[in-house]
Amino acid sequence: MESTTLESGTGTGAFAHELLLELVEIVGTYHVLTDPETMEPYRRDMQPLGEVGLPLAVVRPRTTEEVSAVVLACGRAGVPIIPRGAGSGMTGAANAVDGAITLVLTRMNDISVDEEAQVATVQAGAVTLEVKTAAQEHGLFYAPDPTSADWCTIGGNLANGSAGPCGAKYGVTGDAVRGLTVVLASGEVLRTGRNTLKGVTGYDLNRLFVGSEGTLGIITEAQLALSVSPPAPSTTLATFDDVHRAVDAVTRFLATGHTLSLLEIMDERCVSSVERYLEAPLNEDGPSPKAVLFGQSDTENSAALDAFGTACEEAGATLVYAAEDLAEGQMLMNYWSSLESALEQEGTWILHETTVPRTKVAELIERIGQASRNRGIYVGVHGHAADGTVHPMIVMDSDAEGQLDAAAAVYQDILDIALDLGGPVTGEHGVGRMKCDRFAQSVGETGMAVHRAIKFALDPAGLLNPGCMGLAQDTSTDRRTA
Amino acid sequence: MESTTLESGTGTGAFAHELLLELVEIVGTYHVLTDPETMEPYRRDMQPLGEVGLPLAVVRPRTTEEVSAVVLACGRAGVPIIPRGAGSGMTGAANAVDGAITLVLTRMNDISVDEEAQVATVQAGAVTLEVKTAAQEHGLFYAPDPTSADWCTIGGNLANGSAGPCGAKYGVTGDAVRGLTVVLASGEVLRTGRNTLKGVTGYDLNRLFVGSEGTLGIITEAQLALSVSPPAPSTTLATFDDVHRAVDAVTRFLATGHTLSLLEIMDERCVSSVERYLEAPLNEDGPSPKAVLFGQSDTENSAALDAFGTACEEAGATLVYAAEDLAEGQMLMNYWSSLESALEQEGTWILHETTVPRTKVAELIERIGQASRNRGIYVGVHGHAADGTVHPMIVMDSDAEGQLDAAAAVYQDILDIALDLGGPVTGEHGVGRMKCDRFAQSVGETGMAVHRAIKFALDPAGLLNPGCMGLAQDTSTDRRTA
Repeated sequence: MESTTLESGTGTGAFAHELLLELVEIVGTYHVLTDPETMEPYRRDMQPLGEVGLPLAVVRPRTTEEVSAVVLACGRAGVPIIPRGAGSGMTGAANAVDGAITLVLTRMNDISVDEEAQVATVQAGAVTLEVKTAAQEHGLFYAPDPTSADWCTIGGNLANGSAGPCGAKYGVTGDAVRGLTVVLASGEVLRTGRNTLKGVTGYDLNRLFVGSEGTLGIITEAQLALSVSPPAPSTTLATFDDVHRAVDAVTRFLATGHTLSLLEIMDERCVSSVERYLEAPLNEDGPSPKAVLFGQSDTENSAALDAFGTACEEAGATLVYAAEDLAEGQMLMNYWSSLESALEQEGTWILHETTVPRTKVAELIERIGQASRNRGIYVGVHGHAADGTVHPMIVMDSDAEGQLDAAAAVYQDILDIALDLGGPVTGEHGVGRMKCDRFAQSVGETGMAVHRAIKFALDPAGLLNPGCMGLAQDTSTDRRTA
Repeated sequence: MESTTLESGTGTGAFAHELLLELVEIVGTYHVLTDPETMEPYRRDMQPLGEVGLPLAVVRPRTTEEVSAVVLACGRAGVPIIPRGAGSGMTGAANAVDGAITLVLTRMNDISVDEEAQVATVQAGAVTLEVKTAAQEHGLFYAPDPTSADWCTIGGNLANGSAGPCGAKYGVTGDAVRGLTVVLASGEVLRTGRNTLKGVTGYDLNRLFVGSEGTLGIITEAQLALSVSPPAPSTTLATFDDVHRAVDAVTRFLATGHTLSLLEIMDERCVSSVERYLEAPLNEDGPSPKAVLFGQSDTENSAALDAFGTACEEAGATLVYAAEDLAEGQMLMNYWSSLESALEQEGTWILHETTVPRTKVAELIERIGQASRNRGIYVGVHGHAADGTVHPMIVMDSDAEGQLDAAAAVYQDILDIALDLGGPVTGEHGVGRMKCDRFAQSVGETGMAVHRAIKFALDPAGLLNPGCMGLAQDTSTDRRTA
């Protein structure tokens, strides 16, 4: 399969040896890894269900110029490149391909902040949290907040168009991009974008590369828009005995025209896991709520949270609790932020992601619950209630038989359900290597033809992340351009 | 020149006759115009300085299917297509090309609103104001507000990535796009986007077609995000005796983290024209202010406008006046909304557009004033102070000699100044046929190569809006694909 294996013979012998010498010349011996054991941590992302190959080498450049030289060398040798950052992805987009180079950008982690222009210039390998911290040191705010912000890298955020809970108010990673530095398949260095807030100079190349999952070019640097730091958020939590009521509360709230900086939903399975983990049931004497909503507002006045509380009450919440201060707010948010730790007590979790029209979230949660029971595997759901992006958490019980197969099956069930409810294949995690078939089905023949036309216009030899998005599986082009 | 003329012989004789018969078959006799007089209103946009050709025919389709059939017929005949809406553009992007078909989309003006999903489905030829009105009838709000909203069409807004004063708070046209229907050069109909708020399924094709100025495909329909209508805005006006103080006020205000729904700047020349037109000087006994800021806020509380007033006072405003009610606010805004009418009293105006880093706006205004004096032609400046996009208004005095040459010269001077101050070639009007050279210079050789690669991946025969963005001037591809 072209997505994971090169033609036999590549990666061995004199051919590979010459390329490796060139790569050592470019980045230094220490940053060309070929020993299987040292390469192991770089072979896959966080998605345990994806296929994975063995790279010819793992290469760790420090500069855009080094990336360009690596791309040129690989192009001459006809050896593909899989770019990656920290590997926090969930779709196998950065999984190694047999005989290809895995290009790890984590050494490229420079961050500088222009306070007047409110822009951060960030190398692709910088950790998202460090960008947030650097902005904060200048009294500024980098808004995009993928949940893995404490270890994922900006390059991955850009390549996937990542987003988090704040997206509903502050937008997604792509919204923050002013400009990019991209190494093209030709080795040329492209600078996209502008110094200004607005700009429509030619095609929107910022947005073309954002979300292109490393298939069109390797993003090595970005100019990211910052804003003035908002006040610390106030928090309200509401519980419901019916997930439809929770979704109705969201609808009622959004109809007021107010915006929250965070509006998250969690289903009964997730909540009960967290309650066990925190040893603090939300309802002392009764069962776990069927759904919980978490609302946060970071404005100076309470109008938005007041409207949220009213909407929850009108929708029939069993409890609406507005935290009295920041400390209590953080205590309430523990029920949200402890989820991954809580699920670790129950088994090995896989973070799935799917997006449906916002009003369909209740139906999505119910149908996922049904699929979970059918397959005999735990699936809890939480997510961004204001935009319809939810994260089913598939938890494999290591004591039970066949859980990996059940996980793989329910993963597909969930995609079926989301597509059936009118969602796209992915809202914020990308297509990668896990969703290629569904992607093709979802964008249709014309859509795929347009994707292929763009891909091969910019990467005629299929050098960059072949197989990702299913975009190198049907070209007959010989990669060796020598 | 390929941008305005086809090879001699095209558009005449049996070849053209056959195509015209086909076009009549597709859209009906009444909607294929070939008489020069009836074609005249469709030959150019609002930019009087651009070159313009004579179309083979003006064709007015009603449906996406008709557009597809027209594209197929033109593709077979090797006759290019210039798509256009109302012709409110300012860059000649929709100007006719000799022997090409001008495709007028204004008959495609259906609008429907899905209140629950908060989405409008709109054909390309719908007038922007009518989309706003349709949304309003459902208590909803279509935010993008190009200043020509009362007559420009959504298709043009999309093709140019248009924006207006509300952009600083509500974003630009591209931000509102959920999905598009696009007729490709192959005649195939592509549907991009999704039903959901978020989505990263494959390349961001919405954003690729938005701002592509009809060179990659013909947008025939769009799904546009609506939001809950905000309250009617409150207004504050501030005057300054130095344009730097006005820009400083904007900087101070933005540092507070508040956002206004409108924050406009106007220089002395614009203000004095409006004062004469309204017969109402802002300063009874003295000269016109050197700069005026208009601030509007559409939130329920006054925090943002209070902060704006304070910022203006701290920056040394000569007057800060907060309107007491909506009526008075509208009276203040007359100084802003009467500008075009006021300038019409002084001559024929050309709306220019340029974007610089926001903090450079004062320098931009001063240098444009200098260029205006050097060239002996009136140029006033107004624009969006929060994002650095300003609109120099070039006004030709019909009593003075050589004003058209002076206008053409100062048009280029202004581009020079903006590029020198770090701006892109265009912030919201596009490249069109007026800014091709500057565009190529601004995006560089690699940038142009990428644009060409994408253009010819999707339109290998150069059928769609050739010459626009300078993208069909150096291909040797024969257009006739028969």
